Amino acid sequence: MDELLVIGIGAGNPADITVGAVEALARADVIFTLDRATTDLTRARDALVERYAPNARNVVVEEPRRDRAASAYAEAVHDWRAGRAATWQKAIDAHDGVGAFLVWGDPMLYDSTIAVLDQIGAEYTVIPGISSITALCAAHKIALNRVAGEVLITTGRRLREGGWPAGQTELAVMLDGKGAYRNVIDEPLEIYWGAYVGAEEQLLLSGRLSEVADRIDATIAEARERHGWIMDVYLLRATE
Amino acid sequence: MDELLVIGIGAGNPADITVGAVEALARADVIFTLDRATTDLTRARDALVERYAPNARNVVVEEPRRDRAASAYAEAVHDWRAGRAATWQKAIDAHDGVGAFLVWGDPMLYDSTIAVLDQIGAEYTVIPGISSITALCAAHKIALNRVAGEVLITTGRRLREGGWPAGQTELAVMLDGKGAYRNVIDEPLEIYWGAYVGAEEQLLLSGRLSEVADRIDATIAEARERHGWIMDVYLLRATE
Repeated sequence: MDELLVIGIGAGNPADITVGAVEALARADVIFTLDRATTDLTRARDALVERYAPNARNVVVEEPRRDRAASAYAEAVHDWRAGRAATWQKAIDAHDGVGAFLVWGDPMLYDSTIAVLDQIGAEYTVIPGISSITALCAAHKIALNRVAGEVLITTGRRLREGGWPAGQTELAVMLDGKGAYRNVIDEPLEIYWGAYVGAEEQLLLSGRLSEVADRIDATIAEARERHGWIMDVYLLRATE
Repeated sequence: MDELLVIGIGAGNPADITVGAVEALARADVIFTLDRATTDLTRARDALVERYAPNARNVVVEEPRRDRAASAYAEAVHDWRAGRAATWQKAIDAHDGVGAFLVWGDPMLYDSTIAVLDQIGAEYTVIPGISSITALCAAHKIALNRVAGEVLITTGRRLREGGWPAGQTELAVMLDGKGAYRNVIDEPLEIYWGAYVGAEEQLLLSGRLSEVADRIDATIAEARERHGWIMDVYLLRATE
């Protein structure tokens, strides 16, 4: 292909797409799509493509399945990426012009698109996007950091396995959906929680963790039932 | 005022502004501006205002000076904010319609706009923006995190005073400009450094920290001389 673009399209609010992403979509001849199941999220992405790249060709890349039950998470991801690399290479080689990979949120944060493209030695340009953490804080109207403070961005798995990280006061937790905050419920913490952040279905809850955890659990269970999937993100903030 | 908007306008690339920020600017009657010195950065912001809010009124809010020499950083910021709150309140009360505060990068990260608005009890909406960290990673074409890993967002001051934080492998450093990476130069680290990220003047350097630190020092000194100011951001990544 002449050019490959990795385009961050924001966390779910169509208004969070950047002018640069809109311009990039307008130049795309082929949009590579990586999932087949239709969810609210794929519908929202398709709506962006229809609006900003109406004439682009949509190509679904058939991907290998990932072993989500594997205990060696990093290894499982590594194997899965090797399989992806081969299928992506094939898809890219089969097309001409400008190709685009669309990434929810920010391609720089917990996303493997650029890693796979590096693996196959592809040249590409990245258009950054609004991450779900940023969208979460904007929705709650809170700063991610405290004055002169620091913030640890981590995963649900790490919080579940490692507990509260020593010395930290602000934790932004991604890739959870299973209530890893339960593991630190005895700590003096406030939680700012959100799911489908920025989208119409957006859910927000906040308060002292020990007091709102049950309500968040119930909200996750209900939302998962209603939508068939959940993507949540939260900030935990030490109060003492 | 009828409405107050806090609008993230990205880290310096005009294309990083979101569609939502463009729409918000179009609705603004008054743009509150907080600085008076003319730099490349204020010119770039003025260009965005001219393009997306050509009929809005520009109001410069006279702010108290901040004691940047104070050793008690958090306290100095606190005092400064109290003074700001009074002047902002006055400026807001003096105008009608929709008011907008423009924030470089992301209003959720190391920015005090929403804290000041909270202090005066103002109602507002936040439009998130692309942070300089995201723009840095996009420019270097690197992920912020490693697979299943975590990232600590910190400040130049903390790195200078505290050294390398135990247990961390990825550090995103903001608010430096004084080469705090020098304090960890003996650690096995890679640095991905940038200044004026996303803007035309963008500078990027990367490599083994011990090998590129001198070049980064020299680049900062030259750039500060040429532009009169510098805003840098970098990712430090443990290699062992």
